[in-house]
Order: sequence, then C-alpha cells, then structure tokens
Amino acid sequence: MFMHNKRLQYTVRVSEPNPRLACLMLEQFGGADGELAAAMRYFTQGLTEEDPGRKDMLLDIATEELSHLEVIGSIIAMLNKGARAELSEAARSEAELFREIGASGISAKEAILFGGGAALIDSAGAPWSANYIDSRGEPTVDLRSNIAAEARAKIVYERLINITDDPGIKEALGFLMTREVAHQKSFEKALYAIADNFPPGKLPGVEQYASLYVNTSQGEGDLTGPWNSGAQWDRIDDLTETMPIDGGTGIPTVTLSPDQVEVAEQMALRLASVPEDRLTGAEIGAGPGAGRTSTGDKGGAADIAEASSTARAMSF
Amino acid sequence: MFMHNKRLQYTVRVSEPNPRLACLMLEQFGGADGELAAAMRYFTQGLTEEDPGRKDMLLDIATEELSHLEVIGSIIAMLNKGARAELSEAARSEAELFREIGASGISAKEAILFGGGAALIDSAGAPWSANYIDSRGEPTVDLRSNIAAEARAKIVYERLINITDDPGIKEALGFLMTREVAHQKSFEKALYAIADNFPPGKLPGVEQYASLYVNTSQGEGDLTGPWNSGAQWDRIDDLTETMPIDGGTGIPTVTLSPDQVEVAEQMALRLASVPEDRLTGAEIGAGPGAGRTSTGDKGGAADIAEASSTARAMSF
Amino acid sequence: MFMHNKRLQYTVRVSEPNPRLACLMLEQFGGADGELAAAMRYFTQGLTEEDPGRKDMLLDIATEELSHLEVIGSIIAMLNKGARAELSEAARSEAELFREIGASGISAKEAILFGGGAALIDSAGAPWSANYIDSRGEPTVDLRSNIAAEARAKIVYERLINITDDPGIKEALGFLMTREVAHQKSFEKALYAIADNFPPGKLPGVEQYASLYVNTSQGEGDLTGPWNSGAQWDRIDDLTETMPIDGGTGIPTVTLSPDQVEVAEQMALRLASVPEDRLTGAEIGAGPGAGRTSTGDKGGAADIAEASSTARAMSF
Amino acid sequence: MFMHNKRLQYTVRVSEPNPRLACLMLEQFGGADGELAAAMRYFTQGLTEEDPGRKDMLLDIATEELSHLEVIGSIIAMLNKGARAELSEAARSEAELFREIGASGISAKEAILFGGGAALIDSAGAPWSANYIDSRGEPTVDLRSNIAAEARAKIVYERLINITDDPGIKEALGFLMTREVAHQKSFEKALYAIADNFPPGKLPGVEQYASLYVNTSQGEGDLTGPWNSGAQWDRIDDLTETMPIDGGTGIPTVTLSPDQVEVAEQMALRLASVPEDRLTGAEIGAGPGAGRTSTGDKGGAADIAEASSTARAMSF
Amino acid sequence: MFMHNKRLQYTVRVSEPNPRLACLMLEQFGGADGELAAAMRYFTQGLTEEDPGRKDMLLDIATEELSHLEVIGSIIAMLNKGARAELSEAARSEAELFREIGASGISAKEAILFGGGAALIDSAGAPWSANYIDSRGEPTVDLRSNIAAEARAKIVYERLINITDDPGIKEALGFLMTREVAHQKSFEKALYAIADNFPPGKLPGVEQYASLYVNTSQGEGDLTGPWNSGAQWDRIDDLTETMPIDGGTGIPTVTLSPDQVEVAEQMALRLASVPEDRLTGAEIGAGPGAGRTSTGDKGGAADIAEASSTARAMSF
Amino acid sequence: MFMHNKRLQYTVRVSEPNPRLACLMLEQFGGADGELAAAMRYFTQGLTEEDPGRKDMLLDIATEELSHLEVIGSIIAMLNKGARAELSEAARSEAELFREIGASGISAKEAILFGGGAALIDSAGAPWSANYIDSRGEPTVDLRSNIAAEARAKIVYERLINITDDPGIKEALGFLMTREVAHQKSFEKALYAIADNFPPGKLPGVEQYASLYVNTSQGEGDLTGPWNSGAQWDRIDDLTETMPIDGGTGIPTVTLSPDQVEVAEQMALRLASVPEDRLTGAEIGAGPGAGRTSTGDKGGAADIAEASSTARAMSF
Repeated sequence: MFMHNKRLQYTVRVSEPNPRLACLMLEQFGGADGELAAAMRYFTQGLTEEDPGRKDMLLDIATEELSHLEVIGSIIAMLNKGARAELSEAARSEAELFREIGASGISAKEAILFGGGAALIDSAGAPWSANYIDSRGEPTVDLRSNIAAEARAKIVYERLINITDDPGIKEALGFLMTREVAHQKSFEKALYAIADNFPPGKLPGVEQYASLYVNTSQGEGDLTGPWNSGAQWDRIDDLTETMPIDGGTGIPTVTLSPDQVEVAEQMALRLASVPEDRLTGAEIGAGPGAGRTSTGDKGGAADIAEASSTARAMSF
Repeated sequence: MFMHNKRLQYTVRVSEPNPRLACLMLEQFGGADGELAAAMRYFTQGLTEEDPGRKDMLLDIATEELSHLEVIGSIIAMLNKGARAELSEAARSEAELFREIGASGISAKEAILFGGGAALIDSAGAPWSANYIDSRGEPTVDLRSNIAAEARAKIVYERLINITDDPGIKEALGFLMTREVAHQKSFEKALYAIADNFPPGKLPGVEQYASLYVNTSQGEGDLTGPWNSGAQWDRIDDLTETMPIDGGTGIPTVTLSPDQVEVAEQMALRLASVPEDRLTGAEIGAGPGAGRTSTGDKGGAADIAEASSTARAMSF
Repeated sequence: MFMHNKRLQYTVRVSEPNPRLACLMLEQFGGADGELAAAMRYFTQGLTEEDPGRKDMLLDIATEELSHLEVIGSIIAMLNKGARAELSEAARSEAELFREIGASGISAKEAILFGGGAALIDSAGAPWSANYIDSRGEPTVDLRSNIAAEARAKIVYERLINITDDPGIKEALGFLMTREVAHQKSFEKALYAIADNFPPGKLPGVEQYASLYVNTSQGEGDLTGPWNSGAQWDRIDDLTETMPIDGGTGIPTVTLSPDQVEVAEQMALRLASVPEDRLTGAEIGAGPGAGRTSTGDKGGAADIAEASSTARAMSF
Repeated sequence: MFMHNKRLQYTVRVSEPNPRLACLMLEQFGGADGELAAAMRYFTQGLTEEDPGRKDMLLDIATEELSHLEVIGSIIAMLNKGARAELSEAARSEAELFREIGASGISAKEAILFGGGAALIDSAGAPWSANYIDSRGEPTVDLRSNIAAEARAKIVYERLINITDDPGIKEALGFLMTREVAHQKSFEKALYAIADNFPPGKLPGVEQYASLYVNTSQGEGDLTGPWNSGAQWDRIDDLTETMPIDGGTGIPTVTLSPDQVEVAEQMALRLASVPEDRLTGAEIGAGPGAGRTSTGDKGGAADIAEASSTARAMSF
Repeated sequence: MFMHNKRLQYTVRVSEPNPRLACLMLEQFGGADGELAAAMRYFTQGLTEEDPGRKDMLLDIATEELSHLEVIGSIIAMLNKGARAELSEAARSEAELFREIGASGISAKEAILFGGGAALIDSAGAPWSANYIDSRGEPTVDLRSNIAAEARAKIVYERLINITDDPGIKEALGFLMTREVAHQKSFEKALYAIADNFPPGKLPGVEQYASLYVNTSQGEGDLTGPWNSGAQWDRIDDLTETMPIDGGTGIPTVTLSPDQVEVAEQMALRLASVPEDRLTGAEIGAGPGAGRTSTGDKGGAADIAEASSTARAMSF
Repeated sequence: MFMHNKRLQYTVRVSEPNPRLACLMLEQFGGADGELAAAMRYFTQGLTEEDPGRKDMLLDIATEELSHLEVIGSIIAMLNKGARAELSEAARSEAELFREIGASGISAKEAILFGGGAALIDSAGAPWSANYIDSRGEPTVDLRSNIAAEARAKIVYERLINITDDPGIKEALGFLMTREVAHQKSFEKALYAIADNFPPGKLPGVEQYASLYVNTSQGEGDLTGPWNSGAQWDRIDDLTETMPIDGGTGIPTVTLSPDQVEVAEQMALRLASVPEDRLTGAEIGAGPGAGRTSTGDKGGAADIAEASSTARAMSF
C-alpha cells in the first residue's frame, strides 16, 4: 500500500520559467530511462520476486523512484508555469504565443496538447512505452538489467546537468543523479549475494561454444583485447572454412508429409520464374525519350530504363 | 561492408512442421531480446564508438548476431513450411485451416497477414520496436547494458529449450544460448578494461547522497541485506522527519514575472471551486428508484447515487 | 514524497494457480484502463494542477490507484506462481510445458519473455503506452476525462468479475471496481464545483454553430431523439443545398508568391497525366492465356487483365 | 455506405504558406484528439451499437467528423503548398531549403518523409495510434468517453485559435471548435436519456466502499472539498490503522500443489542471498585511486566505491 | 551467415560536424523508408522464400542494404562527432550546450538520450517499428511492395540531396539513391518473370466487380481519366439507386439462438433511451449567468447552455 | 464533405455468431492492410494531390474504402453479437464465459476491453498505427505504393476466404477482395498515364551505379536470373577487390576544429582500455565451486568462469 506526503523528497527551486528547458527535462519524466521506467521496473519485479529480502529492496527503491518522478515532474511544472497560464488565458498576442510555442514540434505538443502539463513523453514527444522495461522474472538477469538501467539514468542526468545553468535545477538534478549511483550499488550487492549468478539462469552453456570468439568483422582495424584474446579464449578467424560450426551442411531442413510436399510443389510451380528477360513496368514507365538515346551493347528490354538514366544526367 | 554466405552458422534440422511452436520462436526473432535487437544494439554502438578496439569487438558481435537472426529465422521458416503452402494453395478445407490457424490471435496474424513468413513480431504479435535498444553512446554505460542484454537473451533461450522437444531445434537453441554467454564474457572484459568505470560517465555523485539507503517500504517484511546495511551504508528509516533531505520546505517554487503572476491569478479565478455540494451528472444519472430508498443521515445531493447503490445489491 | 507499507490495501486470496486467468487480469494491470493508467493520469494532473484543493484530491486518488496496481499485480503473481517455478527449474517435461505455455501467444509471452512476472502489457500482449493518458492541463476538460476513465475502468472490472469464479479474486475485483465508482463521484463533485464549466475551456463557441445538428447519415433508420431534435436544436437535413455552411465555394485556397506559382506549375507539368489508355504493369503481368480468351467490346490494353479474370473463375 | 462531395463543409481560406504552422495544425489531423480519432471513435461505436437511435446519432457525428478531417487537412495542405513544390523541384538552394525544412525534427519529417502532405502524425511527429480510441462497447461508458473526447478536442482547437493570426484559418478553427461543443451536447442528451446510467454498466458497487474517501496524500496542503467531505462521504485518514480494509493480513496468498511447493523451494534455494558483504563489479570498476584515499569507519568492500566518489568532487 | 569488412561500401567524407543535419539524415537510418527497413524487408522475405533464384536475389540485396545502413550511419556519426565529445566531457558552458542541443526536441533526444550516437529513430525522434515492413509471404505481392519501397527510399534520398550542400555527403547520398533505382529494376524483373502475376495471389476476382469504377466522390471536380473511363471500365455514378450492389437490403444480419435473442433484448431494455428532454451535466455546468439571459423560443433544459454561449461572445 | 447512407455497399449475411472468427476478421478492419489503412492512405493523398484528375480518383477510392470498412466492421459486429450480450448481462456462468472468452489473449481483449465491439486492432490485438500508411507526397512514388497496398489487401482477403466456410461472409469477402483488384487496375492506369515515371521523382540516378548488381550473398545457391544477369546488368562478384566502389579508403572522415580534436582526445583518454586481463563481474559471480575444478592452460582471471561452465554440464 502506498502513502504520500505533499513535501517533495528534495526541494525544487526554479529561477524562472523556461518551456524549452522543460521539454528537455521530459527525458527523465516520460523518457526511456526516466523515473517512471525506473519505478515500474522495480515495482513490477518486487511484485513477482519471492525472496523476501530482495522484494523489500525492490519495493524500497521503486517507492523512492516514484518520489523522484515527483521531483522531476515538479521541475517541469515550474518551468512551464508562466507560459501555461498565458496560453490558457490567451494573455499574449497570437504571434507572440506562436513564436514561443511553435519553436519546435515538441514544444507545440507540450503546450497545445498537454497545456504545459508534465506529460509522459520524452524530449522528442514520443509516448512512454512499457517496452522500456526489460524485467524477465529471474533475479540473476533482472539485477544485471537494473545495474545497467541505473547506469543509463545516471548518464542522462549527467548530460542534463551539463546543459542547465539554473542553480536550483542543477542541484536537484545532482541529487537525483547521485541516487542512481546509490541504487546501482544496492543492485550490485544483491546480484553478488547470489553465490552462483553466472551464467545467469539455471542452464550452463554448451562447453565448446562458451569461450569461443568469432572474428566476423575483418580487414583493417582488426584488433585484439581482453575480450577476444588471451588464455581463456578460443578464436575463429577463418569463417568460410569453419562454418557451419556443427560440421553440417548449413542448409535448413524439415520433413514434410507427402501431402505437404505435393502442395509445396504446386505452389512452387505457380510462382516459378521464367528465365528470359521480359518487359517490366519500370521499362514502360521510363519516359518518352528513352528509346532514342540508348545505344549498343546492353540491348533488349533494358534499353528504355538505361536510356532514361542517360538522358537525365545528375551532377553534384 | 557486409557479405553473406548461404550456409548458416549452425545447421538447422527440424523434425516436422509445427506452426504453434513457430509462434513461440518469434520471441527470439522479432522479440524484445531477440537477435535483431542484439545485432542492432551492437551495430549502432559500433558505428558511434571511437575506440578502435571496442569498435572492432562491437562489429564482430553485431555481425555474428545477424547470423543468429538467420538461424532462428530458418527454424521458424521450417516450422511453418507445410501450413504456409496449404493456406496459400487452399489445399485443405476451410474448417481445417480455421482450426489450425484460428487457434489464437498470433497464429492467425502469422498465417493470414504474414503468410507464414518469419516476421519481426514477438510471440504475442507485437511489432519489433527500436525502443528495445538502450544504447546511450557512453561505453561505461553501454557495456553494462550489453551485459544485461546478453543475460536476458540467455534466459529466454533457456526457457525455449525447456519447452521444446524437437532435438534438432533444441540443439540449435543450445548453441545460440551459449553464444550469449560468450558475448557476455567479452563485454565484461571490455567494461573492466576501462580502468575507472564506476560511477559510469564522468561526473562523480554528490558525496552525502551516494551511500544512503532510504527505507521507503516499511511494515512487516522489512529486512536487511548487503544492499542496505553494513559499514558502507547510511540509512534513513524515519521518512517524515528527514524529508526533504535538503532541509528545505519540500514545496516547488518558481519566480514569475508580474505579468505572469497576474495571468496565473486570472486562470485560478476562472477555475476556482465553489465549496458547497452541487448536483452532479452522476447524481442525475443514478436511476429512477434512487430517491425513494435513500434515507436519513447522508442527505442532499448525494442521496441519489447512494440510493442507487443500495437498490442494486452485489453478491459474490 | 511516496511511502509504502508491505500490507496490501485489500487482502488477495487466490484459490489456485491459473496462468490463463492471469493473462486476462493483465488488462487491469498493463491495459488501457488499468491501474497504471489511472495512477499516472491523476499523478501527472496533480503535478500540474495549481488549485490546492484539486491538487490534493488528485494526489490522494493517484496514490490509491498505485495501491490498486499492487493489488491486481499480486493477483497476477499468485495465479502465475506455480507455472513460473516449473518453467524456471524445468520441473516438467518439455511437452507438458509447451502445452501449458504455448496455449496462446500471450501466455507464451508472459511465460517465456516475462518469466510469469506481472508485466505492463494487456491481455493480448500489447505494451502499456502513455497514449492511454489523455490529460490536457485544463480542469474543465481533465475532470470530464477522469469521469470517463473511471467509467471505463469500472466496466472492465465488471466484465472480469463476470468471467471469474475464484471467490477470493472475485471479492478483490469487487472492491477495486467499487473504488472506481467512488472516484467517479469525487471527480463529478470537483467538476461541478467549478461554477462555469461548459463549454470547457475559456472560449465560448460561435453561436450559429453551437446548437446545430447536421444529419449526415440518412436513409432507412434515420431517427430523432433528444440529441438532435427539440427546441434547443437547429437541424440540417439537406446537405448538398446548405454546404459549405459559410456560404463560400467550399474550395480551399492559399495565396502563393509568383515564384512559388511558377514552381508549382513546373511540378504539375512534370506529373501531368496523358489522357490515353496506356499499357500497364498489371496488364503485362496478367498471365499467358489472357490475350486469347478476351473478346469483343472492351478492347485495347484492358483485354489482357480482363481475359485473365475470365479465365480463372471464382466459385464459392 | 459513404458518399463524398468535393466541396468542403467549411471554406478554407489561407493567407499564405507557413509550413511551421502546418506542423502545429497536425495536432488536430493525426493527433490524439484530432478529427480522425473522433471519426473512428464514433464510427466504430456506431457499428457495434444496437440501439437504432444512438446508432443513427453516432453515424451522423462520425460522418461529420470525417468532413472536419477534410477541412483541417485542407488547411495543412494549403500551408505547405509552396514549400512542397520548392523541395520537390529543388527550386531553391540547398542551404535555403535546409534552413526552412531543418528548423525542427517535425518539419523535417513533414517535408522529407511526407513531401509536405497531410500526414497522420501529431505536432511532434508521433504516428496516430488506435490507442487514442477508448470505446468499450457499453453506452453508459462510451457516452461519457465521448463527452470527454469532445471537451478535449474543444480545448485543443481553442489553443490553436490562440496562436493563429491568419483570419481565414482562425475562422475555420472557430467553426470546428464550436461543432465539438454541439457534439458534446448531443452526447450529454444521449447519456441522460438512459434512465439509469450511474454507476455505468450493470453491476452496482459494493456498498461499504462506494462512498469512502481514502486520504492517502497527507501533510501540509491536505484540504477538503465537496469531493471528499460532506454527508455523502465516509473518510479514512489513518491509513496504517485501517488497512487492509477487509481486515485480513494484507499478504497475498495462493494454494500450490505439493509438487509446485517443492519446485518453488528449489528455485528459492538456487537464488538465495548470501548475507555477507561480497565484492561487486561496481567495486572492482571504481577506479585506480580509490583504495588509497578511503579512510576509516566504512571499511571492507565498500572502500573502493566510496573513495572514488571522494576523489572526484562534484561542484555546481 | 554474415561477414563484415571494416571498409565501407562507399567512402564517407564529411566536411564538418553539423548535429542538426545529422537529425535529418536519421530519416534514412531509423526512419520508415530507411536502410534498416530495407534490409529487414528483404532479409525476412529471403528466409521465407522457397524459390532458390529469388531467395538468392533477396539475400544479395538485403546484405547490400545492411552495408548502406552502415554508410548512412557513418555519415550521422561524423556529423555528430564534435558535439558528442563536447557534451560528454562538458567542454563548453551550459548555456552554449543548451543553445546547440536544445534547438529542438529531436536534437535534444539525439544528444541527451543517445549521446550523439546513430540511433534507430527518424528525423522526429519516433522509434523504428517493424510496422514499416509489409512483407506478406507471397511473391506476386511482396515484389510489388519491394518495388514501391525502393521508389519511396529513392524519393527520400532525393529530398535529402536537395537540402544538403556538403559535397561529400551529397555524393554518398547520390550513390545510395541510385542503388535504390537499381534494386527497383531487379524487383521489377523478378515480378514479371512470374508468368501470371496479376491479380496477385491465386484466387481470381469475381468477374462482375473486377472492372467496375464506383464514382463515390461527386460535385465540381468530377473528372475522367484512364483509371475510370474507357472500354475496360463499367462505371456507377448513381450510388443511391445501385447500392447495395448485391441487390439485398444493405442491412447486416446474423441468426442468434433463442437464448441469445432473449439476452440481447434484456440488454436493449437496460440501455433504452427515454424520449423526453432530460437535464444533462452540460446544462448544470453551463455557468451561473446562463439562466438569466436566455430567452424565449428554445426553452426547457437547453436554456442554460444556450445562454452561456450567448453570454460569452466570440470574436475573431 | 462526406455523407452516409445506412445501407451497406454490400449486404452482410452471417449464419451464426463466432467470436473467434471475428478476431481473424479484425485483420481487415484494424490491421496493417485493412480498410482503414486503405481509406486513410488515399484520403490523405487526395488532400495533398494537386492534379485534379488524380485527386478525384483518390477521393473516389478513399470513400469506397470507408464503405468497405463498414462492411467488414458489420461482419465483425454480427459475429460477436451473441457473446457480447451474454458477457454484458452476465447471462452465462463465469466458467462458461471464461472458456469462451479466455480462449486466447486476443479474444479476451476483444471481449473484456472492447465489449465485443469492432475495434481498430489486428488479429493479434495490436493497435492500428499510422505507420501502416506510406504516402510520400509524390505521385510517381505513391501510385506504386498504392498498387502494392492493393495487392497486399487482396492476398489477405484471399486467405480469409480460404479459412471461412460461412457462405454469406465468404461472398462479402469475395466482393471486397475483387474491389482491391479493380482499384489496383485504376492505380496502374494512373501511374502509367504519367509519361516519365521511372525512376520515380525528379532526379535521375548516377549512371555508373544504376545498372550494377552486387552479388553480396555467395556460396552454394548463387544463381542467375533476369534480375542480375543479361545485357542490361553490370555485375560485381569480387567484393573485397572492388569495395569501396568509389575507390577511396572506405573509412569515414570528418574535419573537427582544433578545440573539438582536443576534447575528443580527452574523451578517448578517459575511456581507454587497459590491455591486461582484469577480473570481471562475471568471474566473481561464477559460483563457489568454480576455482577448484579449473585446470591448466587457460589460467588467470578466466579460470573461474571456465570452471563453472565445466562444472555444470549441459546435455540435450
């Protein structure tokens, strides 16, 4: 059960309204790594988690993230406060409001659709989607996803700090950013408290493929590092010789029933290609002058399109 | 530049068609943790990465994931092969095809919309979305996201292995699952090769908030663990006494210009609430018998709705 | 600031696991009218609302909806509990797990992607989207949207009650459904407490169009009711005589600069249609036997396609 | 069956091209409360509605909304007319076209992807989604949703009027806005013509929960109003004493079979936490200088991360 | 199996960084007609295609499109290169970074969320969606979709060329645009190599409807052309006389069981409309002064709303 | 301006309710190639089109597609009619309704969320998205897209006909399918009436790349056909020798300012990789027994992970 107190977890002091900055702050409100994503990530994991210690931790952090959603949302509300009333009451001329609000698509959507409210969209106006949440119901996986999610949220706050010069906002963002660091530390502790957490899940890997590095991108710039060389790695460089790795044909197969084989052949026959070069829609659409200028060695149906390309030269 | 060889990286041997199983396999083709998400995650990071060693690794693994997309897609194509031809050529009666294809929404979408082809949807028919990719353009963040992504892909393969009894498919899934383990190991090596990778990004946190655990979920089940107790943690249990943590009022503020203040007051006046209890739409819509049965102490406008609830008893 | 207590607002007592029923319950967890949509609708309005009374109400109800999200999520967790462990530990044979989990696309996604966790998807597996939230930052509008949202949530709970025979779940759903009724009553009171709330917003309508009913759908079944007849309505039945309603030409116009006119003419010339009947791609693709069977009066380029249709008769 | 006349319902007279204004107008073409959403909302309800009077009304209004979609789309087409031809024919220099078209992401998408056509996106470039339509197939619910939808569409038109100074566009928007008012009046009449429309649907609520107000948000700013006080409300202020409201434990339960219990325990064992403070990835990644500067009382594994934070001071 | 070489298919030479231009280029990276859409369109068709010749062609072109994705992604990476480092290292003042990055929502999302990396979004920040791919698993359909997709990709490149004056980018775009032309020619050849490809699929149409043109949009501007007149077309102009075209009633019917009829009647009764004009929520919300100014001939419940409109005059 | 007549364009006669079949029919109502997509595709093109003849054709066909949307929607309404009332009035037992409605996720969503109404979702419950519409504002492109769209709609109807044995529905689907054939013919005529329609748009291609076929997929199965061989094609088989095709280095470049170079180097230094093999999170998480069993030649930090894999053997 949730309860709420009207005081924020961190006091928000905004110097002056700035609707454009508000749009950027939306990234941490309704964006991919924003506070709603964080809160819902941990809350839904907490509901599913059966270990009481981890469940408690997940609900603690989920609840704090909701308080952070409130802090960042309050920043947005303050930044929009003046413009919101001006549009609502038509307090400035049309041209002035258009100049301010029509500065970009997202500021228009924020003002005209949402009335300057804190909306669950990101800085480009894309709606928040539960696709942002990648919980999988297995702690050795989810804790890694949580560690990564906190790292992502941290860097987005860092970038917002780098572009904000309002001291009150900067301070509140610093608090929020640091809490992501603390949460990452908690999730790290919880992951490594599971004695055997790698590989994640229960099934081990197939031994012969678990330490193999396949060098699929070659040419100049082919390098080594601890991720692909050293004692723990087997490495494949000659792809065409060693693939398929199972030693088979590399051709997919399935066994159809005789009836299915017959139907498949019928379909193949219906859709078979005629080998010759037949006239196409592109050729009959390639323009009136096409046939005249084409010359020589390419001949046949292709003449028309070729000629057209010739006739209309492109220069940069 | 990419090149392709028609042999698969791992030979696919499917025993017999099974369109319903094909729908489940879509999870790793067009699903959130499927091979397209993996390939595009590393490929887009590789394009942005400026460190040549990590760039090489990202392109190696991205390219291999494309080959895995081909392996899982070939499994799906084989599982659908018979049914696809039967529907295309109308080789069975309407009732038989309906029984097979109408088994569920997703099998219908797979057959009727996609003609039994390998489509970039997940096992519930939701389209693949770039929202699945969480690259942030900072290696100390992205490598953590990649570690987590490999863990997620691993567990989804593990679950598919657990529900598949076709030995050829099971074997191919085992190969694919193990490669996720190997890739996770590469990304771990690359992360820890960056000497100072925590906190991720460049800015440190604010010291007084970086080791704080806020116990926001309380009551029975409140537990301790390495994630919230021990020497490295400061801990807050009494929320109402300690919040806002900055010692301020906890009330968001912004300074408006005098003009804006005036407009804001004008808006407030227009939208002010009348304190008395006025008749509402719900009350006038609460049904003809409502006024009759309501009695006594709640009085006024609320009578109608109350009475209606009384009149229509609910029993479970 | 939010706080949490591990007790639920309403005790959840589930008789036995039932993953298929869990999928249906997702409608009120991650669905369009589910509790997340409700909580976020009121919470984001509360952040924006400047009237202290309404702000308090919005935060009260938002917080309660979060507690409801926890109740319905706990029902889902309980319904999935057995199957979740069986898949995770591979405790049953592949065929048994496939039969249970492969019953439909959504049950597969729930189990294989989400590990049986409470996920923010709906009963068909579509991810929750902030497009479900229609707050507009104007109380005379938003309160109407809230009234409607509560009505929608109420009917979805009613339908879930109608298909659930587990008494503990039915009882909890009854509680949740009734709370939507109570919330609707609060929002009705808040709307009608704004003395002048219709038309919503600030601008009145243009008088001559505000009481007009345009009878655009005619023919048998054309009826009257209080929505289109009576003293308060003006009504238009003869559309072709009365449109455009402003008495103009009904043709859209814009004034281009002379340069733009010239460019527009250039584009028109490039894209002009030749009036004659030219051979098309469809005709050259209409099949080998086409030309032979076509006869008589349609002639010209159309022969081929026509003939093809003739040659392949369709019978139902 | 639909028919069309090429005259618009309201004559569109645009003074001069303005692609940026066109982007804002998209909000009512392909946006959440735009005319397509309105038309499809009523049209799909009309198909499902079995009451002939309401069906007629829904089809009347749906058809009119299609005509409004045409009006707003024609405004957009006129505003884009010049720029569209200039880009198509490359009639201005690259730098000029970039300056005009690259002004923001949405104007780029409008010009480069859609060629300046009226596209079903909103003012931020997000595609129209059927998630915008909230019809539920129950008139006592849907009519409330329609009332709210008309209120939303009205306020969005009002805001567009407030930022537009082209008199012809302003006049057309005034017409469109007023029609939303008239439609809201029709839907109000239709709702209240259903004698018993509250609570919506058929099931009444559970009596003891239907008039309860739960004061979940407390602290300074806790207020009363007709929505939470007065004769018709019971009110709960002391949450921790009164929850769970059913008098139970507040702990969710389900009865598993003995086999399932065993498997659940096996999973719990695999995933149990070790209580001690183990080294984590964050600690080994916390940077080279970390161990040196940390002092004193926090000790153990936490030293490293702590030290790192110390070493890199953050200043605002 | 895929392989990769670090050289690009076409050398990218960018004159200088330009993050705003980078946003526009995203249209062909993560946009609807961009290179990922192209690559995945042909790759998924290739996996499904059973004709070996067409399969080879689809995999050839899919692989080349991946190389094009790399070329356009490299252009984006180069254009963002400077700004990316400046934001990452906080190398410029907050105000400068805000001016550059806060220019529009999409440039903010590109910088703050994606760190200036090549992201799978379009020029307005909308995420890539598999809804962009319209493969249907039938070659006579898919080849037409491929022809159209190449035409779309071609025009988007053409528009980007028209707004770019960096000669290196212009040249690379010219290469990419031309390859779409070549691919269109291949798909045309493959379509017309299927001897009988129209109508697509296997079923012919119903003869009497296959050459019919229904003139549903009438009034001034009603024109003829080869698409609706000439020997091959039958044409219907008088809709009300000829519809429904099957000669039936035009009323949809279904046969319900007696039980279902009874339930349907019960539902109809519950939801029946009262014919009289009842008071509505709009009327009681229409404002305090409403009743006073309304006069005379419209009377009844409608007075209030009418009066309100009168009282608040709208002027443009 | 649109008008409507309550008669359908084709009479719908459904034998008996069948909610599962209704779900499949949704594919042509709210699916990717359904009638809404068709109507909106042509309607939005019609608004933008400046050629009066093509505009008339587009509006004719758009209007007819709306009438088709009504026909397919009426089929869905009839198929759902019985079940809709039974759920609404709770006319059958919970278990019976669950069996019918809980058959799959999509049938649940259709019944519980939409109340059995015709909803704008596809057969898997995914919401209709404007991403389905690919109009580009250039007739030589859009007409090709329209041709392809009609081909896709045709094949989806063909497949629905193949799985439906209700004669009335089959007949109506046959009508709808055939109209797609007729519309394709109109669009073909309109495309080829533009004298010079290939390459689409205005810019010709770069001559040396316009007839080149790049054989990127090699190995067994490498074939020729009219799409890649014959007089009109130049062909590249040796990729590594001929790429990059422009004769450059294949390495992307950009010129940074000296300041930017310095910042880029600073970022590179911060993120540089240490070459040695450092301990990773995976290794410390690889389980308690790991260190003991590992032997010999791989040594170092990798021991732990290796050992773990060894210890937990995987067998299929």
